[in-house]
Amino acid sequence: MIANDPYAELERRFGRMSAVNRAGAILNWDRSTMMPQGASEDRADQLATLSVVAHEMMVAPDMPELLSRAEEGKGALDRWRAANLREMRHNWVHENALPADLVEARTRASSACEMAWREARKNDDFKALLPTLTEVVNVTLRVGEAKAAALGVPLYDALLDEFEPGGRCARIDALFAELKSFLPGMLGQVMERQAGKGPILPLDGPFPVEAQTRLGLEMLHTIGFDFTHGRLDVSAHPFTGGTADDTRITTRYDEDDFARALMGVLHECGHALYEAGLPRDWRRQPVGNARGMVLHESQSLLMEMQACRDRAFIDFAAPRMRAAFGRSGPAWEAGNVHRLYTAVKPGFIRVDADEVTYPLHIMLRYRLERAVLGGDLKLADLPGAWNDGMKELLGIVPPTDTVGCLQDIHWPDGSWGYFPTYTLGALAAAQIFAAAKEASPGLLASIGKGDFAPLLIWLRTNIHGKGSVAGTDEILTEATGAALGTAAFKAHLESRYLSA
Amino acid sequence: MIANDPYAELERRFGRMSAVNRAGAILNWDRSTMMPQGASEDRADQLATLSVVAHEMMVAPDMPELLSRAEEGKGALDRWRAANLREMRHNWVHENALPADLVEARTRASSACEMAWREARKNDDFKALLPTLTEVVNVTLRVGEAKAAALGVPLYDALLDEFEPGGRCARIDALFAELKSFLPGMLGQVMERQAGKGPILPLDGPFPVEAQTRLGLEMLHTIGFDFTHGRLDVSAHPFTGGTADDTRITTRYDEDDFARALMGVLHECGHALYEAGLPRDWRRQPVGNARGMVLHESQSLLMEMQACRDRAFIDFAAPRMRAAFGRSGPAWEAGNVHRLYTAVKPGFIRVDADEVTYPLHIMLRYRLERAVLGGDLKLADLPGAWNDGMKELLGIVPPTDTVGCLQDIHWPDGSWGYFPTYTLGALAAAQIFAAAKEASPGLLASIGKGDFAPLLIWLRTNIHGKGSVAGTDEILTEATGAALGTAAFKAHLESRYLSA
Repeated sequence: MIANDPYAELERRFGRMSAVNRAGAILNWDRSTMMPQGASEDRADQLATLSVVAHEMMVAPDMPELLSRAEEGKGALDRWRAANLREMRHNWVHENALPADLVEARTRASSACEMAWREARKNDDFKALLPTLTEVVNVTLRVGEAKAAALGVPLYDALLDEFEPGGRCARIDALFAELKSFLPGMLGQVMERQAGKGPILPLDGPFPVEAQTRLGLEMLHTIGFDFTHGRLDVSAHPFTGGTADDTRITTRYDEDDFARALMGVLHECGHALYEAGLPRDWRRQPVGNARGMVLHESQSLLMEMQACRDRAFIDFAAPRMRAAFGRSGPAWEAGNVHRLYTAVKPGFIRVDADEVTYPLHIMLRYRLERAVLGGDLKLADLPGAWNDGMKELLGIVPPTDTVGCLQDIHWPDGSWGYFPTYTLGALAAAQIFAAAKEASPGLLASIGKGDFAPLLIWLRTNIHGKGSVAGTDEILTEATGAALGTAAFKAHLESRYLSA
Repeated sequence: MIANDPYAELERRFGRMSAVNRAGAILNWDRSTMMPQGASEDRADQLATLSVVAHEMMVAPDMPELLSRAEEGKGALDRWRAANLREMRHNWVHENALPADLVEARTRASSACEMAWREARKNDDFKALLPTLTEVVNVTLRVGEAKAAALGVPLYDALLDEFEPGGRCARIDALFAELKSFLPGMLGQVMERQAGKGPILPLDGPFPVEAQTRLGLEMLHTIGFDFTHGRLDVSAHPFTGGTADDTRITTRYDEDDFARALMGVLHECGHALYEAGLPRDWRRQPVGNARGMVLHESQSLLMEMQACRDRAFIDFAAPRMRAAFGRSGPAWEAGNVHRLYTAVKPGFIRVDADEVTYPLHIMLRYRLERAVLGGDLKLADLPGAWNDGMKELLGIVPPTDTVGCLQDIHWPDGSWGYFPTYTLGALAAAQIFAAAKEASPGLLASIGKGDFAPLLIWLRTNIHGKGSVAGTDEILTEATGAALGTAAFKAHLESRYLSA
């Protein structure tokens, strides 16, 4: 039986799916923060069941007819409803593209490979990873083929589309080519310039967890994180979870180095503010979800890299750091702290990379994952290709695979097509922050006084509140006057690292 | 399409419902402990959706045929599977008895009345509660009628059956008549006796929350609470939530009186140990659930009232209390602490009542709720009837309705038929503890040394591990040699309060 108003029926169903998925998001957060370890199998059963429930709602037999009939009446829908219907169809195509056995094979392959990866990384034993990683690649190819057929795009684009709807290789190739044209040269210049300024003074610990927590909470309050709709907790791997009305940030504390937790909190805060700013009336429908990983990563990087590593913010934060840990002296002056937080140096580990070298790490992964999926690189040859690429792009060769091709969980966990969104997000962050500063000339001065309201209001209006009403480029164009490009990022790096 | 093996198909479906309900249990726990207040509407939507999802699985159109076909093949099932099928049918009858609009009306009426109750209690204004409470009673009557028809029992029994499957008025009337024959008289004797022993020395605070928490955790470890499968947290209203593999106790701390939190933790620990001890192979099927509220309450009261207010445990605990708070002196000697924890005195508030007067509070509520549901007492006359009953049963009259008929949330929240299970649980606790002591003669001596293993092992075998494989009386008879009665409770009170 099909409803009289197919669009209204779709809203009802997608609202239900959203509620089930939001329940799952809280349970996932709990698993990483609160759950006693003995409950992991119980929790896995709960989460798997909720996934199946949501999946069955999506692939209900009458869904194609409902979607088609709603699309026939699309002319009568306003902008948000029309966009919502488009997102419903998009979500349905993704979910419906995979037969149930492939969904299960995918979960099973990545679970097995993740387990093997933890051991392989620990033991610097890439060979031990090969069997399960081969299986992940095979399943990923089947997924990619199924989605490529459903979406009518090439295989890699189909995988990328899961993370960044509308994301396409051709765009990435062009953007990455631009980056490659100046980044390696710029890296040399920046390093030379930084070396010329003499040594940076280290901030010596220990930094008690309690003081770090207080400082993190103070900074979250400063930025505008709403604790009536969110929390800060501890987990082994920091993340932002929960729902738009209930954003949950996690971090981990290192008593020798408070910057990791603090910068991590500021980074996750950017993600959380995006979620919290999603359109209030639509956040439980597809059109009210975050646009994709490019804009999501742009929001975390905008907060961490653009705003909070700016000298204006460091001027505000340095005295608060001194107060939090009861320290003083030249190392704790804003100038030194800023140098510490903007130091550039090639390293082996992506997650520890500065913003100049980070895109080079991503280009390597993008190049390699496309080669593997395209059949141009055998998995057995991955370590060698990795090391060659590191030499070419960053000028250094990892001494072990542990700090080389085994460092990231993404390939073992099946997130092929994900890596490029990090750097696209960095480009978007620079572009968005530049536009915000232009639109609101006193913005940096406000941040220097610990007032993030001008930034936050601009982001709410121009990015967060848009949800998925338009595509990434359309939102960026409306907000910044241009589609995603490298110019703002380049200008940002030149200004921060080569001019002052 | 009906499966070839209808019983196996039912197990699959009830396993799924269990997973959805377990997910809801964790989300409920989170709501009371972790959730930022701004997320309450979001969470309500998640929980309502999970309820609907589980409900729709239960009332699926092919369920009656599945149940019937499985019941036809019941002869081939072993004891657990046959009992599981019986529980499936029982759960289905309850869930299927109510049309969707009545389920919704019930939720709506109790939500509205709960809100009104909070105000009415604060303002000592019973009249303000009347309109919403009338609606709750009307809806409860409709629910009771529907379930009475489905179960083939009288209306009150049908309501009671939701909390205590198989529970019947006739049994309660007989048991309560026995209690009434000796409790009021005993109360006078006990008070006289306690007064004759001179004043009890108070334990003076303040008691810092941190020290109380450490003491509570120490006692939970002592009793055998498994922190790899559970947690202790804080909530406004203490409860035990979560799942059998993930038991979550909450408490609240009063810096002037540590006994409330400590005794609350011991009480909830009894509930949690029951859940944690449910049969490992069946805990995600109906037959592996706790038997009902009578045995559940018996387990919390056994731990709090029977074991932990016993002098043997106080001898163990008193030195640890002194150490926890850095105190000493006569008030902190085990003898005085034990007198404090076993002091008997009629009071207005049920939840603060000692174990001698508690059943009298319950008898009052049971009498009144039956009269209201039977049409023999108008809601408008409830305050007067309450006060008359207090005078008769406890010899005191509450000065306000706030500490009278407005004190409990149960009627406003729609839990009509729930109250008697508290006292049936107290009877069962005494009976079970007596049997455990008889079966394991060194049990009290072990508890005196902080070793709860003999008690816990006996409970696991004789109560917890039985799940719902049999009825309450059958489990009690197997464990204690008799169906539920008042003899052990009476003997316990005589021994604790009139002999030593």
